[in-house]
Amino acid sequence: MPTYTAPTKDMQFVLHDVLKVTSQNIPGYDELEADFTSAILEEAGKLTSEVLAPLNAVGDKEGCRLENGVVYTPTGFKEAFAQVKEGGWTGLDMPEQYGGQGMPYIMGTAVGEMFSAANQAFTMYQGLTHGAASAILAHGTDAQKDTYLPKMTSCEWTGTMNLTEPHCGTDLGLMRTKAVPQDDGSYKITGQKIFISSGEHDMADNIVHLVLAKIEGGPEGIKGVSLFIVPKFMVNEDGSLGERNGVAVGSIEEKMGIHGNSTCVMNYDDAKGFLLGEEHKGMRAMFTMMNEARLGVGMQGLAQADVAYQNALAYAHDRLQGRAVTGAEYPDKPADPLIVHPDIRRSLMEQKSFVEAARAFIFWGATLLDNAHRADNKDADGLVSLLTPVIKGFLTDVGYDMTVKAQQIYGGHGYIEEWGMSQFTRDARIAMIYEGANGVQALDLVGRKLAQDGGKHVMAFFDIVKDFIKENAGQDAEFDTQFLDPLKAASKDLQSAGMYFMQNGMKDPNNALAGSNDFMHMFGHVCLGLMWAKMGLAARQALAQGNGDASFYESKLATGRFYMARQLPATALHLTRIQTGAQTVMALEAANF
Amino acid sequence: MPTYTAPTKDMQFVLHDVLKVTSQNIPGYDELEADFTSAILEEAGKLTSEVLAPLNAVGDKEGCRLENGVVYTPTGFKEAFAQVKEGGWTGLDMPEQYGGQGMPYIMGTAVGEMFSAANQAFTMYQGLTHGAASAILAHGTDAQKDTYLPKMTSCEWTGTMNLTEPHCGTDLGLMRTKAVPQDDGSYKITGQKIFISSGEHDMADNIVHLVLAKIEGGPEGIKGVSLFIVPKFMVNEDGSLGERNGVAVGSIEEKMGIHGNSTCVMNYDDAKGFLLGEEHKGMRAMFTMMNEARLGVGMQGLAQADVAYQNALAYAHDRLQGRAVTGAEYPDKPADPLIVHPDIRRSLMEQKSFVEAARAFIFWGATLLDNAHRADNKDADGLVSLLTPVIKGFLTDVGYDMTVKAQQIYGGHGYIEEWGMSQFTRDARIAMIYEGANGVQALDLVGRKLAQDGGKHVMAFFDIVKDFIKENAGQDAEFDTQFLDPLKAASKDLQSAGMYFMQNGMKDPNNALAGSNDFMHMFGHVCLGLMWAKMGLAARQALAQGNGDASFYESKLATGRFYMARQLPATALHLTRIQTGAQTVMALEAANF
Repeated sequence: MPTYTAPTKDMQFVLHDVLKVTSQNIPGYDELEADFTSAILEEAGKLTSEVLAPLNAVGDKEGCRLENGVVYTPTGFKEAFAQVKEGGWTGLDMPEQYGGQGMPYIMGTAVGEMFSAANQAFTMYQGLTHGAASAILAHGTDAQKDTYLPKMTSCEWTGTMNLTEPHCGTDLGLMRTKAVPQDDGSYKITGQKIFISSGEHDMADNIVHLVLAKIEGGPEGIKGVSLFIVPKFMVNEDGSLGERNGVAVGSIEEKMGIHGNSTCVMNYDDAKGFLLGEEHKGMRAMFTMMNEARLGVGMQGLAQADVAYQNALAYAHDRLQGRAVTGAEYPDKPADPLIVHPDIRRSLMEQKSFVEAARAFIFWGATLLDNAHRADNKDADGLVSLLTPVIKGFLTDVGYDMTVKAQQIYGGHGYIEEWGMSQFTRDARIAMIYEGANGVQALDLVGRKLAQDGGKHVMAFFDIVKDFIKENAGQDAEFDTQFLDPLKAASKDLQSAGMYFMQNGMKDPNNALAGSNDFMHMFGHVCLGLMWAKMGLAARQALAQGNGDASFYESKLATGRFYMARQLPATALHLTRIQTGAQTVMALEAANF
Repeated sequence: MPTYTAPTKDMQFVLHDVLKVTSQNIPGYDELEADFTSAILEEAGKLTSEVLAPLNAVGDKEGCRLENGVVYTPTGFKEAFAQVKEGGWTGLDMPEQYGGQGMPYIMGTAVGEMFSAANQAFTMYQGLTHGAASAILAHGTDAQKDTYLPKMTSCEWTGTMNLTEPHCGTDLGLMRTKAVPQDDGSYKITGQKIFISSGEHDMADNIVHLVLAKIEGGPEGIKGVSLFIVPKFMVNEDGSLGERNGVAVGSIEEKMGIHGNSTCVMNYDDAKGFLLGEEHKGMRAMFTMMNEARLGVGMQGLAQADVAYQNALAYAHDRLQGRAVTGAEYPDKPADPLIVHPDIRRSLMEQKSFVEAARAFIFWGATLLDNAHRADNKDADGLVSLLTPVIKGFLTDVGYDMTVKAQQIYGGHGYIEEWGMSQFTRDARIAMIYEGANGVQALDLVGRKLAQDGGKHVMAFFDIVKDFIKENAGQDAEFDTQFLDPLKAASKDLQSAGMYFMQNGMKDPNNALAGSNDFMHMFGHVCLGLMWAKMGLAARQALAQGNGDASFYESKLATGRFYMARQLPATALHLTRIQTGAQTVMALEAANF
């Protein structure tokens, strides 16, 4: 059975050595001293490895069960959820006014990574609640906030997001769910929603559904979509629960993974709903929290890759098979452990170098979000907007690949459910799909974000890379060759791709969109390259100062060198592909496939 | 629910336009006239799409059930198996002497692809039987052949291959299963084998296990391994079945996929076994059929990719979502179908261009095997030996990626089991692992095959590419630019990688092995590039002659151009990685991961 060890030391390194959070001029960040963050991470690490991780396989095996309209979660989930609530983990970064701890989003992200890695299906119950609560926080009336937020912060009530219908997911303008205005100011909601994570379950007293629907007589298409709060049980004036609302689970889906989460078909039948935000501005309300939600999904890609890697590494140390080609390393054992073999080592280095840089990338994204929200920094907001599709799309695509690589190290045992490696792969698969399929992320990046505000944010990104190189070049020839030169080359590839889009996307937008997936991936590589350069620098500085664990910092440098030498050059291939434009992609008529 | 349409036209194109089978000087190939092969492929196509494909989801959902030592296969498998046996499909390429149809291996391969695509788990029952029968055919005494082969050819009895034990798979020298010689010339076999596909089930009267074990007192390690025939029921002199042998299923494994096949733990307890081939030469006997078996697994990678692609394509035509960026293509519909979007088109082209070239590659490999076996051609044998790890490793790695891409086109529906796309991914995953995990294939390629017979076979491969380019260059500028130039560049990359290994592998073999996975992949790309160049040429010739379906040949050219322009350039990235050698891969001490 797999285990999980929270990477607290790596997280502390990113927070303090790389991002230097306390020196960032963001409200609330002055409190994030190393001792303080360490205490939180250690506690969360204990909870996730000791309580949540052991339930991961249980959730996968048992799944959720629907009986007479009641959904039963897997054995142990309820008790674990109670423990999570008790520890105050569900409201870490929610406002103190509503019972939260008011911490910056970056702390929610760090703790969230541990939760996801330990038990993705379990964590979704609180994750969706957090998303729904954030939408109410941003768009609700004071009365709505007072009614729902305290209970949602504590997860006594959980939340859901209802967007998809059987015939539409990405293109929500096609939606059919109707909202009919009532005399009391409420609406009657009727329709069917599918793929509703945590839609119904037995771990909360109430479930607060956020539902997209069209108000009768409103504008056509996406412009006529509004957002509604539809509680499972009506809430009385005094906060107590009233009668059951007209919403019910129709069925639960059988999925490839995340079996421990109840993915429901939800039927709304004249259910009482309350407008959240303005009429016909539902998409805007739903998407205010988009960057945050998508960053959270990108983090899941990293989290599954990390826990899969941890177990693959342990297996590679344990499993004896064959001999090192350069001569037996453990002649007293019947064979050498897998880790002596170069191709196993290559795979482990790919996983390790991805996981550590992806974490730095996501933490950086979280500081940008904090900067945008807490300091109202428009530049940070623009930059994180640009990076969000990269974080979501690239990290979940590659994160999935990494779980497959980790599984591969187990050989046949990787294919047997008993060993747990298959679950990481199956659970990681969803992150490429939900919260906007990765093709949509690439489209968002190339079709919208690149040109946003006159291309200001992508210019700002290139400046960050350029400035970093300029500030740190020429101090150490080795660091220049191993880190800065490859970063420069990769960044140049990315700029060339952007240039190609500008020059060729005008006359035919397909020339840009045919390369959108490649662009998202090359952008991701440049970001991870930047992260490795920053981590490499931090490690060098720490080594120069002679404090801390030298072998920890040496390992960072060795891992970074691997990424820069072997992974980052992928940008050249992506550029080659992009520069072929739409020609070969669109040449074949649809009818001739 | 997914469907499957056998690609008979594409197969005919490869057999007759590209490989020109009847003109090849291989015994039995003169019979493979287009009408004849068409009749077989059409029949197999009907059986696979109408009988086997509808059972694919059933097998996945029900799985196999073990009760009181009996394994029950999923509903409908028995009846379908009876139909397959009746049609003579199980003995297509087995000798007529034992009731087979004596056709060349290439026909078994073409039909096998359809079987695998339609129902991988089902097809394994006969696939393993074919493998075991081939081993008996190659190494058995006449009496053994007469006893087992007729019944195995008809699949009245099925077969298994027993290699893996709990603590060893790749490194079989560690095996513990013991064989004790008996006075009557038989052996008593005792030990446990795991991951035994089709190990026990209810579809055959007898099961013939081929078991690797160590004869007591024999040499240590891999040199002391022998191969034994261990029937489930003893066979009497008159061919009737006698008493039950000391072999029993211990449990069936829960796996990520291929649920319809019973993957068993098999316990041998003083089971009566008969030596197959020579004492202590078990590995050699087992591996005689290796090239064939591995080519068959490579074919599974292609087969799952093809059926997944077919369904993704249908979905992309059906599902309405969004509008073409260049303007609505179906203004009368509420939205355009997915296929109008460039990124969807890119994904479909990646799948299509892989599947069609992979098929040509495997068919080519099958003709080499036929040439080696039927014409005793040593050069063909050497070449197919070289290409086998590429076919197995590259096609299953990429085939799996393609099922993931096909699944992605379905968005959320791809994650729901009901739609069947998850099964293709889960079923395809095993092909990267069994019959030698892909890391072992890469090791075999770089560590053994490259230098085999003084590097003669890899030189022969480069000559084939060079000769093809020389013979066909200069006739059409477009063909040169679109097909021959990219092939030349990719082949040059591959040669440079080989050169790097020669120059740097001597001083440190890790310099070669750290690049083994990249080399296997770049070799695969060059092979698919060669196939596209050959298919492109054949399509051009057919168009010039003005016979046949012009749009079919135009589509081949368009698909080939995509591959050459966008996929083949991956060789440059692989070369870059290879040329970094072992340095960054092996720098981190095992203890510091």
